[in-house]
Amino acid sequence: MDGPPSLEKNASPDPSGEDWMREAIRLARTGMLTSSGGPFGAVVVCEGSVVGRGFNQVTQLCDPTAHAEVTAIREACHALQRFELRGCFLYTTCEPCPMCLSAIYWARLDKVYFASTRLEAAAAGFDDEFIYGQIPLAVSARTLPMEQLFPEAAAELFREWSVNPDKTLY
Amino acid sequence: MDGPPSLEKNASPDPSGEDWMREAIRLARTGMLTSSGGPFGAVVVCEGSVVGRGFNQVTQLCDPTAHAEVTAIREACHALQRFELRGCFLYTTCEPCPMCLSAIYWARLDKVYFASTRLEAAAAGFDDEFIYGQIPLAVSARTLPMEQLFPEAAAELFREWSVNPDKTLY
Repeated sequence: MDGPPSLEKNASPDPSGEDWMREAIRLARTGMLTSSGGPFGAVVVCEGSVVGRGFNQVTQLCDPTAHAEVTAIREACHALQRFELRGCFLYTTCEPCPMCLSAIYWARLDKVYFASTRLEAAAAGFDDEFIYGQIPLAVSARTLPMEQLFPEAAAELFREWSVNPDKTLY
Repeated sequence: MDGPPSLEKNASPDPSGEDWMREAIRLARTGMLTSSGGPFGAVVVCEGSVVGRGFNQVTQLCDPTAHAEVTAIREACHALQRFELRGCFLYTTCEPCPMCLSAIYWARLDKVYFASTRLEAAAAGFDDEFIYGQIPLAVSARTLPMEQLFPEAAAELFREWSVNPDKTLY
């Protein structure tokens, strides 16, 4: 996101929002009933059509990144063959965790509609709120130990990147 | 991470750290030279062996979540057939972005070693620092428009989850 949303964007909400959220809820329930993971679902909508669907599959796939939103974003990008989703909307049954929220920023989605909040997710036993509290902390203040190693060895990578004529910015 | 690291963990750093970081740097360069994405690489180490490798493949795969750390975590979880990586270390050429840092928390990695910092990534043109600034903001204060829709329709999902006898916590 390079700046605040335009008035035009806010003045033209998707007219089918309730349908898309019901689809996200249906996906969440499907995931729960098939023991895929937590009770979360999401869809990506582009020009009035669903282009990506996801439900939480963390435990089923052994993939801690397989949250509903990440899965829907990956599927939408694959369907559209784009690494960004400008012009698309995300409908998710719950306010995104920091991983998914960051993925949403990287994907440049236009807007997110969510139903439940991160506090309801925390009350249901999920770590979203804990991780939200960790992200803004200084490296040394987090519960996760982090240590800098060999910074000069990696600095050369950015120098090579800066002069690489074939790079694609994202 | 359920609490602060134990003393034992900090007193037993991985003895081959330089080798693992060199492997991460090698992966980053491979990714850059094959036009896969940005100049980032990562490895997950478990009991002295690399169990997951990743380099940034955002533009090549059309996947905004295909950062080096996410890719390495997904590969490690697949290799170990676990949705958590307790007892494992991550070596990454750059301080993780908020998406990857959150994925690291969800994966319960023991420790992260990084080389370059997020400020160097920002200087090279990446949005890590911008997204770090967005995450702690109130929903209404972010540049990304977010709106709550139909909260009651999704609340039932958490109620079903709470009484689901087959659920696997993560």
